[in-house]
Amino acid sequence: MRWTGFSLNFLWRTPARSDRLCLVDTTLAITYHEHGKPADVLRLEERPLPEVGPQEVKIKLLKAVINPSDFGMVLGSYGKLAELPAVGGREGVAEVIEVGSEVTHLRAGDRIRFPENAGVWQTAAVVPAKDVWKVPADVDLDLAAMAWVNPPTAWRILRDANIHEGSWIVQNAANSAVGLFTIQMAKYLGLRTLNVVRREELIEPLKGYGADVVVTEDSGYEKQVKALTDGGEVTLAFNSVGGESAIRLVKALSRGGTHITFGAMTFEAVRWPTRYLIFNDICLKGFWLDRWYRDNSPERIQVMFDNLFNLMRTGVISAPVSATYKIQDFAQALEASTSPKLGKVLLEP
Amino acid sequence: MRWTGFSLNFLWRTPARSDRLCLVDTTLAITYHEHGKPADVLRLEERPLPEVGPQEVKIKLLKAVINPSDFGMVLGSYGKLAELPAVGGREGVAEVIEVGSEVTHLRAGDRIRFPENAGVWQTAAVVPAKDVWKVPADVDLDLAAMAWVNPPTAWRILRDANIHEGSWIVQNAANSAVGLFTIQMAKYLGLRTLNVVRREELIEPLKGYGADVVVTEDSGYEKQVKALTDGGEVTLAFNSVGGESAIRLVKALSRGGTHITFGAMTFEAVRWPTRYLIFNDICLKGFWLDRWYRDNSPERIQVMFDNLFNLMRTGVISAPVSATYKIQDFAQALEASTSPKLGKVLLEP
Repeated sequence: MRWTGFSLNFLWRTPARSDRLCLVDTTLAITYHEHGKPADVLRLEERPLPEVGPQEVKIKLLKAVINPSDFGMVLGSYGKLAELPAVGGREGVAEVIEVGSEVTHLRAGDRIRFPENAGVWQTAAVVPAKDVWKVPADVDLDLAAMAWVNPPTAWRILRDANIHEGSWIVQNAANSAVGLFTIQMAKYLGLRTLNVVRREELIEPLKGYGADVVVTEDSGYEKQVKALTDGGEVTLAFNSVGGESAIRLVKALSRGGTHITFGAMTFEAVRWPTRYLIFNDICLKGFWLDRWYRDNSPERIQVMFDNLFNLMRTGVISAPVSATYKIQDFAQALEASTSPKLGKVLLEP
Repeated sequence: MRWTGFSLNFLWRTPARSDRLCLVDTTLAITYHEHGKPADVLRLEERPLPEVGPQEVKIKLLKAVINPSDFGMVLGSYGKLAELPAVGGREGVAEVIEVGSEVTHLRAGDRIRFPENAGVWQTAAVVPAKDVWKVPADVDLDLAAMAWVNPPTAWRILRDANIHEGSWIVQNAANSAVGLFTIQMAKYLGLRTLNVVRREELIEPLKGYGADVVVTEDSGYEKQVKALTDGGEVTLAFNSVGGESAIRLVKALSRGGTHITFGAMTFEAVRWPTRYLIFNDICLKGFWLDRWYRDNSPERIQVMFDNLFNLMRTGVISAPVSATYKIQDFAQALEASTSPKLGKVLLEP
C-alpha cells in the first residue's frame, strides 16, 4: 500500500479540530488513480480545496461509511464507476462550513449528506449546493452517516414488493446492515423474518433486533420452512450472497415468491434450478439503489428520506457500529470492514 | 421395451377404420405403470372401454402429439403427474362418436380436443362431456392437434409480457414448435425476433417462417446484439434450453429485459450471472401453461383459443409435421421425436 501526504497530517488536523473553520483549505482524501484491489490502489493524498464559488458550499466530513459497493467501485466491477482519479466512498454525513454568495437554502452549521459524486472518504470538499441534501439535526449522527445506502435498499425492496401483512421474508447475510434494517422495518410493517447467518453467535443478537427466526446457512432450513414459519407463506427473499446460499432462498420461497438479489458477497455465479422458475412460479429480480435514485424525482426521494429519518428518530430502526477509524488509519479500517463483525466500520476526520 | 396386446391390433383397427363406429369398444393405449425412462416403462395395452354414461361422450383419436413435457410426466420429473397407471400424452384432437343421454352441446362427428386427463396417446376413450372443448371444423387437423400446448405458451408469454411494438425477442431452440409459433406471432404483433439454433441448416427454414435474424448458439451473437438488431431493444427472452444457452440470452437482453424460462431441454442448472439482475435490471421468470389454465376461467381460456384458431385459419401461424406414426409404432415415434428435426412427431390410430 502506498501512502502520501502523511507529513502534512498534523498541520492539517490542527485547524480542523479548532473552530477556525476558514482555515480548512485542504482535504485529506483516500484516492485511487486506477482500478484494482483496494490494498494495492488506494492511497492517502492531501489536496488543496478550490475557492467556494457562488453556487457552491464548503463542507467538512463528520462520519463516512465503508460499504461493500465501495470496494466494487475501486475494483472496477461495480455497475457504475467514478471518473479517475477518484476519491473512494459513497456514504457519509458532513457539516456546511462555508456558503457561496448565491446559495440561500443552506448555512454554515447545517448537517448534510456528503455528496457522493465528490467521493466521501475525505475530510472536506467544495461541492455544488444543488447536490446537497439536508439531514435533520436530531437524527443520531452515526445513523445519519449510514442512512443513504442500506436503509433505502431495505425500504424500497420491502415497499415495492407485492407482499401482504403477516407473510414472511427470508434473507441471507441477515447480520449485514441491510439485514438488520430489514428485520426492524419488516416488524414495523407487520411482516415476519426468517434470517440466515453463517455463525451461531449471531443468532441471539439478531433476535435482539426483532428477528422472528434465525438459522444457520447449512442447517437444512430450506427443507424445514413450513415448521419454522408455522406454515406461513414466504413471499420475498433478500439475497446479497450468491452461490448455494442464493439457491437455498429460492427453495425456501412459497409458490409465486420473489427472489431479489441486491448484492453478491461471494461473487460466485448462482446455479439456479430452473424448475423453480417454471413450476413454483418464482421470479428472480435484482435491486440497484443507484438506478432507483436515477429513476425517481427529487421529491419522491425526499419523501422516502423523511420517512426513513422518522424511523430513525422514533427508534424503529437503529444499527450497530463495529468500529470508527480516523481517515489516515484507513488501511486498518478497510481490513476491519471485511472481517466478521456486527455493524458498519465508520471513518472520521 | 415391453409390448402387449399386439395380437389384437389388427382386429381392433378394422372397425375403427370402417364407419361401424359403434364397434369401438376397446382402446389401444400407450401406458405406464411406474415412473421411469420412457423406453423402459411405456407399453402398449388394449383396454375395454366402459359404457357411455349419461353425461359422458365416447371419442376416437384423430391425431396426438409428442411433446417434451410428456417425457417429464413419464419420468416423474414434471411439475404435475398423472395418477398411476396412466396413459401417456397430453395433446391431440379427437372426434365424438357417441353421446350420453344428458349431453346436449355435443353430437357425433364433432371435432374436439382429446381431454388431457384421459391420457391422449390412445385410440379411443370415454370422457366426461364437461371436459370437452370443441374445435372448429375448418382448422387444419394437424394444427388442431398441436393447438393446446405450444401455441398458447408462445401466445401467453408474448401477450402477458410488457413489450412494445418494434422491440425484439430473443429465443433459443428457435426451431422448436414454440419457437416457430413465436416467430410467426411476433411478426403478427409487430415484434422482431433474434433466433438462436444449434444447426446451421435451420437458418434458412426459419427465415421462411418469418424470422428476422437467425444465429447459431456459439457464434458469439450475444456480444453482437446491437449490430444484429440494428440497435433495437431486446426486451424479452424465451428460454427453453437452460445451461450456457440460457445465460447467453440474459446477456443479449437490453437493460430492464425479461427472461422467461418455460422449458429445460438440457436439464442443466443455469449459472446465472447475478450482476445482470442487479445492474441490468433483468428479471428472470418462468411460465407454466398448466398453471395458467388453472388460474384462468373457462371463458378466458375460450377467448384465447378463439383467437388462436383464427390465427390458424388465416394462415398467420402454421407448423411443420416431422412425421406421423401409428400408435402401435410408438417406439419409433418416441425416438424420432427426440432426434434433430423440424416439426412435431404425431401419432394416429
